[in-house]
Amino acid sequence: MTKTRIDHKQLRKLAAELLMAAGTDATEAVVIADNLIWADLVGRFTQGVWRLTVLLPRLRSGLVRSPCVPEFIQKAEGMGVVDGHDGFGHYVGHIAMKKAIELAQGNGTGLVAVRNSNHFGASAYYVELAAQAGMIGFAFTNATRRVAAHGGLTPIFGTNPVCFGAPLENGESVLIDFSTGAMAGSVIRKASEAAQPIPEGVAIDEHGNPITDPQQAQRATLLPFGGARGYCLSLLVEILTGVLTNSLISFQIPTMHEKNQSPSRIGHFFFVIDISRLLPLSEYLRRMETLVAEVRKSRLQTGVTEILIPGESRWRNYAEQLREGILLDWTTTESLKSIANELEVSTPW
Amino acid sequence: MTKTRIDHKQLRKLAAELLMAAGTDATEAVVIADNLIWADLVGRFTQGVWRLTVLLPRLRSGLVRSPCVPEFIQKAEGMGVVDGHDGFGHYVGHIAMKKAIELAQGNGTGLVAVRNSNHFGASAYYVELAAQAGMIGFAFTNATRRVAAHGGLTPIFGTNPVCFGAPLENGESVLIDFSTGAMAGSVIRKASEAAQPIPEGVAIDEHGNPITDPQQAQRATLLPFGGARGYCLSLLVEILTGVLTNSLISFQIPTMHEKNQSPSRIGHFFFVIDISRLLPLSEYLRRMETLVAEVRKSRLQTGVTEILIPGESRWRNYAEQLREGILLDWTTTESLKSIANELEVSTPW
Repeated sequence: MTKTRIDHKQLRKLAAELLMAAGTDATEAVVIADNLIWADLVGRFTQGVWRLTVLLPRLRSGLVRSPCVPEFIQKAEGMGVVDGHDGFGHYVGHIAMKKAIELAQGNGTGLVAVRNSNHFGASAYYVELAAQAGMIGFAFTNATRRVAAHGGLTPIFGTNPVCFGAPLENGESVLIDFSTGAMAGSVIRKASEAAQPIPEGVAIDEHGNPITDPQQAQRATLLPFGGARGYCLSLLVEILTGVLTNSLISFQIPTMHEKNQSPSRIGHFFFVIDISRLLPLSEYLRRMETLVAEVRKSRLQTGVTEILIPGESRWRNYAEQLREGILLDWTTTESLKSIANELEVSTPW
Repeated sequence: MTKTRIDHKQLRKLAAELLMAAGTDATEAVVIADNLIWADLVGRFTQGVWRLTVLLPRLRSGLVRSPCVPEFIQKAEGMGVVDGHDGFGHYVGHIAMKKAIELAQGNGTGLVAVRNSNHFGASAYYVELAAQAGMIGFAFTNATRRVAAHGGLTPIFGTNPVCFGAPLENGESVLIDFSTGAMAGSVIRKASEAAQPIPEGVAIDEHGNPITDPQQAQRATLLPFGGARGYCLSLLVEILTGVLTNSLISFQIPTMHEKNQSPSRIGHFFFVIDISRLLPLSEYLRRMETLVAEVRKSRLQTGVTEILIPGESRWRNYAEQLREGILLDWTTTESLKSIANELEVSTPW
């Protein structure tokens, strides 16, 4: 199926227009569009403009509310809670991470726990905001239940990603962002659209047998990645995002992809460290270069051509697509076109 | 080989006496002994009294210094650095975590970065201090290079464990503590003593071929656990403990087990969240019980008899050994006896 290159500015404009035409507050639309386009630029297409096909129906049904005014409740000098009041997760998350950065500027560290939010897209987007401010960032979110505990058959946890960002000298931060399930839910969804089988060790049926059919896998229980250790990380993220925030716990969150349901009430957790309080930023950057250089100098395993720093392949996508345009697949362009027609918005393709 | 049960109080007394007889400051000896005995009680024997066989020679050679006065430098309201001045990692770590808890009591969160320390034993000991104070704790440390980057053959990172603790209603906290290398270095060392082969996927030779001989594995490069995701976590821990602390980075740290070398200058990183600032502790505990109950209710995979909460098997060991005595293996009792004879200290066996 053919792919189309779209200039990122045109695509950002389209995303914002679609959001506004569907009833999203204008300020929110700009923030959400920026988030979606960033995900597309770095190659996380499952968190890019394709998401509008899920987000807009949820707005229409009132499960996501806009305009929304996220409410900040300060809990300590460097600590607070944001109640998202069912607003777009992308917007609520942005407000919360910006607040965490502001707290860290005044206090060295900033912690913001978020309740009553929605799916917030690519976690890496938020830690990148921290890295751009010269800070180390953590971003966590829960999500509807998909992943079993180690040894179990019942889905308990969301794919609860672990996400961490740290600035580098060249401006391309270290970006760590991975699902604690054996595979991200959105990646399985994409595999299903492309009718590509998924590997064993990802999804299981009700008896624990492996499922490789991506369509079946979408409704199946996922295994935690790396066995007991992945389960530990799923639980860690759940405690921070589900328990501490007073929001819903993953197994209580309704799925996003079904109709006639209640709001997601997802929890997020952001934590930021102002590096310059611990050592001069220039000294930190020099030390990071020492570490990165040592990693790159590694002798390579057979068949490996280079060691990548986490985030590096994302930044390569970013540079290429910023220059050449974002490479959208047919499913995305077609479904956006159909939404655009309905909303009487013109597409650049 | 026979094992011996020793009452934990007697063993704690012996550990403190051996430390003092070897020249450790009395206050420090009590703290270090408590740490070692806790590790033994929970069944982490590789971080228990057996460690004295490594620690005491390092004290004697001046690579670990006692008495030591860890220096606290406040960096913000809830943030500081501890310079360990080459003291025992167990003592420096204890001082630093206590300080992080104190900061969190005043400020909601407490972050303490530690430089110029030594091997600090079981990470879980520190987060348990936080959990006992009604707080969530994180503890990280780097260590001498053992683990390759994903795709590499050269050791770059220490086994850089990820450690997290959170209180539960019954007083037995969630304890997550795992190596980001495919296997903890101390576990390989124990396998070597027991002449038990290690599984493939843990250690590799200079060409990347698997090593299963535990003796060879002790000097070999380890793989990160779970491929790219384990590598990401090794790097994350290294940034927090090696880069941010201004201490040595793992690949710069000399190994503990060789003679004629320089001090370790290991870095640690502690972070504590005072739960009661975000929600009443009783409400948090109730929410944790809801989550734990849901996990326990999981339908089980074939061959699995129950789902354990992280730390649960540790607490079972703890209860049993507190009651029955600590089950020391022959290698440990023999080597401690020989040290005790040399230092003219009597052993309870």
